[in-house]
Amino acid sequence: MSTRILLNCDMGESFGAWTMGDDAHAMPLVDQANLACGFHASDPLTMQRTVALAVRHGVCIGAHPAYPDLVGFGRRHMACSPEEVKALVLYQIGALDAFCRAAGSTVDYVKPHGALYNDLVRDDALLTAVLEACALYREGLPLMLLAKADNTREQRLAEAAGVPLLREAFADRAYLPDGQLAPRREAGAVHHDPERILAQAIAISRREPFPGFDGKPLRLIADSLCVHGDNAESLAVLRRLRAALDAA
Amino acid sequence: MSTRILLNCDMGESFGAWTMGDDAHAMPLVDQANLACGFHASDPLTMQRTVALAVRHGVCIGAHPAYPDLVGFGRRHMACSPEEVKALVLYQIGALDAFCRAAGSTVDYVKPHGALYNDLVRDDALLTAVLEACALYREGLPLMLLAKADNTREQRLAEAAGVPLLREAFADRAYLPDGQLAPRREAGAVHHDPERILAQAIAISRREPFPGFDGKPLRLIADSLCVHGDNAESLAVLRRLRAALDAA
Amino acid sequence: MSTRILLNCDMGESFGAWTMGDDAHAMPLVDQANLACGFHASDPLTMQRTVALAVRHGVCIGAHPAYPDLVGFGRRHMACSPEEVKALVLYQIGALDAFCRAAGSTVDYVKPHGALYNDLVRDDALLTAVLEACALYREGLPLMLLAKADNTREQRLAEAAGVPLLREAFADRAYLPDGQLAPRREAGAVHHDPERILAQAIAISRREPFPGFDGKPLRLIADSLCVHGDNAESLAVLRRLRAALDAA
Amino acid sequence: MSTRILLNCDMGESFGAWTMGDDAHAMPLVDQANLACGFHASDPLTMQRTVALAVRHGVCIGAHPAYPDLVGFGRRHMACSPEEVKALVLYQIGALDAFCRAAGSTVDYVKPHGALYNDLVRDDALLTAVLEACALYREGLPLMLLAKADNTREQRLAEAAGVPLLREAFADRAYLPDGQLAPRREAGAVHHDPERILAQAIAISRREPFPGFDGKPLRLIADSLCVHGDNAESLAVLRRLRAALDAA
Repeated sequence: MSTRILLNCDMGESFGAWTMGDDAHAMPLVDQANLACGFHASDPLTMQRTVALAVRHGVCIGAHPAYPDLVGFGRRHMACSPEEVKALVLYQIGALDAFCRAAGSTVDYVKPHGALYNDLVRDDALLTAVLEACALYREGLPLMLLAKADNTREQRLAEAAGVPLLREAFADRAYLPDGQLAPRREAGAVHHDPERILAQAIAISRREPFPGFDGKPLRLIADSLCVHGDNAESLAVLRRLRAALDAA
Repeated sequence: MSTRILLNCDMGESFGAWTMGDDAHAMPLVDQANLACGFHASDPLTMQRTVALAVRHGVCIGAHPAYPDLVGFGRRHMACSPEEVKALVLYQIGALDAFCRAAGSTVDYVKPHGALYNDLVRDDALLTAVLEACALYREGLPLMLLAKADNTREQRLAEAAGVPLLREAFADRAYLPDGQLAPRREAGAVHHDPERILAQAIAISRREPFPGFDGKPLRLIADSLCVHGDNAESLAVLRRLRAALDAA
Repeated sequence: MSTRILLNCDMGESFGAWTMGDDAHAMPLVDQANLACGFHASDPLTMQRTVALAVRHGVCIGAHPAYPDLVGFGRRHMACSPEEVKALVLYQIGALDAFCRAAGSTVDYVKPHGALYNDLVRDDALLTAVLEACALYREGLPLMLLAKADNTREQRLAEAAGVPLLREAFADRAYLPDGQLAPRREAGAVHHDPERILAQAIAISRREPFPGFDGKPLRLIADSLCVHGDNAESLAVLRRLRAALDAA
Repeated sequence: MSTRILLNCDMGESFGAWTMGDDAHAMPLVDQANLACGFHASDPLTMQRTVALAVRHGVCIGAHPAYPDLVGFGRRHMACSPEEVKALVLYQIGALDAFCRAAGSTVDYVKPHGALYNDLVRDDALLTAVLEACALYREGLPLMLLAKADNTREQRLAEAAGVPLLREAFADRAYLPDGQLAPRREAGAVHHDPERILAQAIAISRREPFPGFDGKPLRLIADSLCVHGDNAESLAVLRRLRAALDAA
């Protein structure tokens, strides 16, 4: 393994008086923080504070844009046109980057959130819209997307737009043979056993095969692992994973 | 008069399916467009389109941040803390600048909107918060504020923050002796006679005295005149004013 | 024809400082006003004023609930669960009814708006959710839906929920053979010729056949015709239609 | 003491994916639940669930309307006109009452939230607007307000509007000599010692004097005590208070 796999985590998901996650404890353990931009979560003050926290710990900052749906936390598909998606992604990147600039930093990459993230797997026009937003905002600004068994489609569209891709994998999700995530509603789609999560994370970090949803071995090429740190259990797994990767 | 006075106009104030103003006709007539950033008006697609219109006409783009109050169009005072104001101004500047960057342009200045604009006249902590947002976003980013008979207070705080000031005057508003605007609720606070508006505009552009609310002559030093272009009447005045200034 | 066909119109679609429609001129011409409830348009003050206008003209008031999408004017499909839809329809009916009660009136029926209206044609679970919201709010509160060539499905579900149906037809839209509306993107889907609109309206009011999208005659059983009155042209057609129906 | 003092608690303050409070444990301990209506907190589904919880425990339901400020949790003063306040209170009462009706219950009273609650202490026009909203919604619908040493002003305006008043007192707040709450920013304004909170609660319930902010005895006539139940400590105090009142 030439390049160390990175750990990314959704953060900055509080909203006004409502808190979510445990950013203070998770931040020191990750490499990349995907920060909500006010459309599915967060608000200007929360963004300012979370950017400051990331900068303090030397963590790369990713914009985490979403459909405009606070009540649904950006998890509900909305029939936005590609033109609308391009504009709302640009808006959110810029809003977050203002706090990065104010803190002497910058938005390092873009990772769409929730339903928008999922829609990009299926919809070329939407994926192109998001890629264009990245390219228009800053030459070379990378887009983080789902690492599948075959990312040819994504790579082709990203190359056309001149956008580098970051492929992220999940240590706590079961994968279908094509490298898509098993739907959450299926039994066994989400791993809860810490040992299994750690084993899958280590396998992915070494680009070694690991068992998929059907039990057959699957190999994913990923640049980053999506981790969670919003409660005591996930933080415990995250600490062990961080230690294992640092020791490798 | 060494420096030509500029014309600035609030634009990009449509929201979703609702249109406001006549940006297409007003844009070619002004020098500076104050663009709503989504908190009191506008939305990502409207911002993208209005930025493109401004760029097409070579018009300078100002961020027009406001309190978060769409229903009240940012005209209702909200008791936001200085820390909140600093963050919400940063957010809005960044969001607008994303569209400027995508169009090969940049945010040229910041002019707060509505109740926030008015609150800055009285509240040093809020004015400092907005000045800090400007300075943090980009060194040298100017703040546009009300030109009064005496702007010493504003200049002192702006210098401390390292922020250039742009002073704007109004051709259609009556001024109190201290150079504050006569409250709209007072009879005679708003000029409707085109001749009077033009005369006041020309006087201000030449830095010559003009009659204040009490009839006594008043002199204002201003960098820009705030104009309107949202209906046939105001566009007619704007066309005459543009021609008069260009001829000077 | 024993029962006179009614005219219904979407109204109260202004939002804060933004106006839409010409309710003052359209209200006296219609029988039923579908009033926005704050989720796709309107706000408390607009609702209060529009209810007062309807009451003044003796017009029946319908709640016009929508997905929570102000920017998209409720026209964008959102993947809300049936449980969420039931709750957001209840919320919006109640909010509007507060103004009706304050004006000595009541919500007379419910007509979903935009994408929610369209989704009910295809999705039994969503339709059931809206029907339950009507039944829970008030026994006998009717739901207004699209009159198709065959409304058996809607009638079956409505009967199960104990909710009366109002079937509405469109005079300015072309119909597919099954009585669904031809999609707006198709050429010829929307009638612009006033004579054609009037002819289709009169035919529907008499329960006589009229030419569908494919030119073949189609017959619809409808209780109400959806009309528009937001500009001079649509108001002119509406005045002629009102006169024709009153003369019949 | 002829009438038992009641316990009221702010509830239903979750919003979408964000939870707040511990309604499940607090609900069985109180008599009156003040339920957020979507303007400072809550959403249609949360309202539906919290109403169901209140009905299950036989708890009276109060509408808890607020300024439209989710990010600020309704705690920031907004310069809304009396006409706007009347309309937004009506809107929120109706929205909540829809869920009450659906659950076979009704809104029992109205208690404004946060900054709106505080503004009513000083502003006759706003208080009259809220009183009118109550009276217009339903004859006899009571308004819950701050019990002060002298509520003559509130009683006079409430009588003029025909609205019954419910006076609430606080067991965990220090009172100024005039019966207003000591500002939170003052040291000693909020009691944290459970014994002191219980003693003040019992004194108020018996209409006996208790020490005010200046140490001098103060007597308040109150119908209800505002309690908290959002964490283990406040729940512990609430359980002891409930037991003490039930034993009295």
